[in-house]
Amino acid sequence: MIDSNNSKYKEAGVDIDKGNTFVKGIKAIVSSTHQRGVVNEIGGFSSLFAIDKDNYSNPVLVSSTDGVGTKLVVAQLCEKHDTIGIDLVAMCVNDIIVSGAKPLFFLDYFSSGELELDVATDVIKGIAEGCLQAGCSLVGGETAEMPGLYKKGAYDLAGFVTGIIDRDKVIDGSGIKVGNKIIGLSSNGLHSNGFSLVRKIVEAKRLDLESKPEWAEGKKLKSLLLAPTRLYSPTTEEIFDNDKIEVKGIANITGGGFYDNIDRIIPKSMDAVIYKDRWEVPPVFTALKDMGNISEEEMFHVFNMGIGMVMVISPSSIDDLRECVRTRGEDIILLGEVTGGTGKVYVK
Amino acid sequence: MIDSNNSKYKEAGVDIDKGNTFVKGIKAIVSSTHQRGVVNEIGGFSSLFAIDKDNYSNPVLVSSTDGVGTKLVVAQLCEKHDTIGIDLVAMCVNDIIVSGAKPLFFLDYFSSGELELDVATDVIKGIAEGCLQAGCSLVGGETAEMPGLYKKGAYDLAGFVTGIIDRDKVIDGSGIKVGNKIIGLSSNGLHSNGFSLVRKIVEAKRLDLESKPEWAEGKKLKSLLLAPTRLYSPTTEEIFDNDKIEVKGIANITGGGFYDNIDRIIPKSMDAVIYKDRWEVPPVFTALKDMGNISEEEMFHVFNMGIGMVMVISPSSIDDLRECVRTRGEDIILLGEVTGGTGKVYVK
Repeated sequence: MIDSNNSKYKEAGVDIDKGNTFVKGIKAIVSSTHQRGVVNEIGGFSSLFAIDKDNYSNPVLVSSTDGVGTKLVVAQLCEKHDTIGIDLVAMCVNDIIVSGAKPLFFLDYFSSGELELDVATDVIKGIAEGCLQAGCSLVGGETAEMPGLYKKGAYDLAGFVTGIIDRDKVIDGSGIKVGNKIIGLSSNGLHSNGFSLVRKIVEAKRLDLESKPEWAEGKKLKSLLLAPTRLYSPTTEEIFDNDKIEVKGIANITGGGFYDNIDRIIPKSMDAVIYKDRWEVPPVFTALKDMGNISEEEMFHVFNMGIGMVMVISPSSIDDLRECVRTRGEDIILLGEVTGGTGKVYVK
Repeated sequence: MIDSNNSKYKEAGVDIDKGNTFVKGIKAIVSSTHQRGVVNEIGGFSSLFAIDKDNYSNPVLVSSTDGVGTKLVVAQLCEKHDTIGIDLVAMCVNDIIVSGAKPLFFLDYFSSGELELDVATDVIKGIAEGCLQAGCSLVGGETAEMPGLYKKGAYDLAGFVTGIIDRDKVIDGSGIKVGNKIIGLSSNGLHSNGFSLVRKIVEAKRLDLESKPEWAEGKKLKSLLLAPTRLYSPTTEEIFDNDKIEVKGIANITGGGFYDNIDRIIPKSMDAVIYKDRWEVPPVFTALKDMGNISEEEMFHVFNMGIGMVMVISPSSIDDLRECVRTRGEDIILLGEVTGGTGKVYVK
């Protein structure tokens, strides 16, 4: 075979051997996420996943792709690479569970100017941890070396998830009625949105990421900012499996905050009214608002404000929903209700 | 709503409105690729695709993610963005059809420092064209603005495809026997591999991408380099649908060239022997070899050398395979055969 020390391709900045070493090194991490359905090991051309067709009358595949935004830049700045993969999985998985889907499998795309084995391995560990939390299998990925595209030390991440649901169980907001209640599930901090703004504030205020500001609840600023996005799938799966609870619509509070995301599920003849005194906005949001001189309206347009997932249910489901999530050690937040209107979202 | 001129988020480099304008603008392009199975329009949290479970006894989903490597840098250098999306789809789809799968749906991830609407629209047009050629539906994507990660004007692309096949029809090389024939389907030039090396040669030799070197078959160098990767799925689908042809193994000649890719399907007790006099290597490869002073062995380790897809079949299937692809106006190339051995690939 080729003597890699003589390779023109390696001289040009691409090291096939290093790529192969990397794939071998992560095999055990990746395999640890494999659940029923995974047909082949990683390293082939493609990933095979068997579906149990008997469980579905009309199976619908639900897929999503996403990145983690410039939270990535903060991770790279802090040289902390082992949780950003959880964010990546969460950004994708949280987008498919709003349809009621159960996540099946995940693939990642990792791209950098030059592959750094330990950084990339940390990233994959986070992705595997995210997949374990989500209950889906990491079945494949691509590790690209792109000399000339990225700034030094930078890398980008994209994730892809596919889930499944029976067609007559798809949650799409069409059953939402006036008088339905809007409930929230708490977030784990900033999740992966609004980080370009966060970074601007950090720079303008010359905040030290290693410091512990008084509003940081005893944590280092970098830990607070990089707290991984919550994966809602274990909770939502229990809710979906509970026949007493009928979920009419779900919105993932991601880019675009409350306004753009709740807007996607509210019928045009109704409004969503959220009462902001129903929960305590975590201090990180208040601190960012003050330091950045950001209007409250924009805060709710960019950040999750402590509520990462919003559900619309009938009033009769509230007690069962509360009981269901309490078995997981948390509580629901009664955010507001659906009123007659024109498809608007109000935060009052 | 927010006055976007007053938005701190926009000041920080992220323009939600521009993102929304982009999504609206590409809706018709994306919808043009939609085939049976697509349940919802783009713009929701996720993409829904219904599968016909009656067509499969044991449905297996086959997925792959890939990028286009540094062919992207060449496209950006030439400011030609409308065919790199075809490459993206081909890199993903060609990896799943080696299992015998039929591609169903595709999602893309487009990431840049600052979203340039016309560039991004050109890229999506290419992706849609690739999906039409592949016979799959473009069901979703993510457009990320990542100030601080990319060099100016640079963007990265990742693709994700999911296909389907019945489990007992999966092609995995396990049926390969000594005496089987190895055939090739021609490539459309460089496809999307080896571009870091190509760029190094272009730079070292100070080649003008707008020029027409004598070996460029009357084309501008940039057109030759950026010729889109061939999508093999229309051809392979016809082959798979033909009951008279039994394909034992397929290798996509992508990164790693002949050696690493054919190696993936050849059983450990056999060798693959390829006779390089069986076809004419296109001039672009010969020119790169000479200009770059690259060994022939490395050429076959990096490039497709004119053969983009390799199949292993029994000798009795050759005539039917030839007839099948002739209806599509092309011919098969008899590359060589499978011999007893130790799992090696020889190019003689």
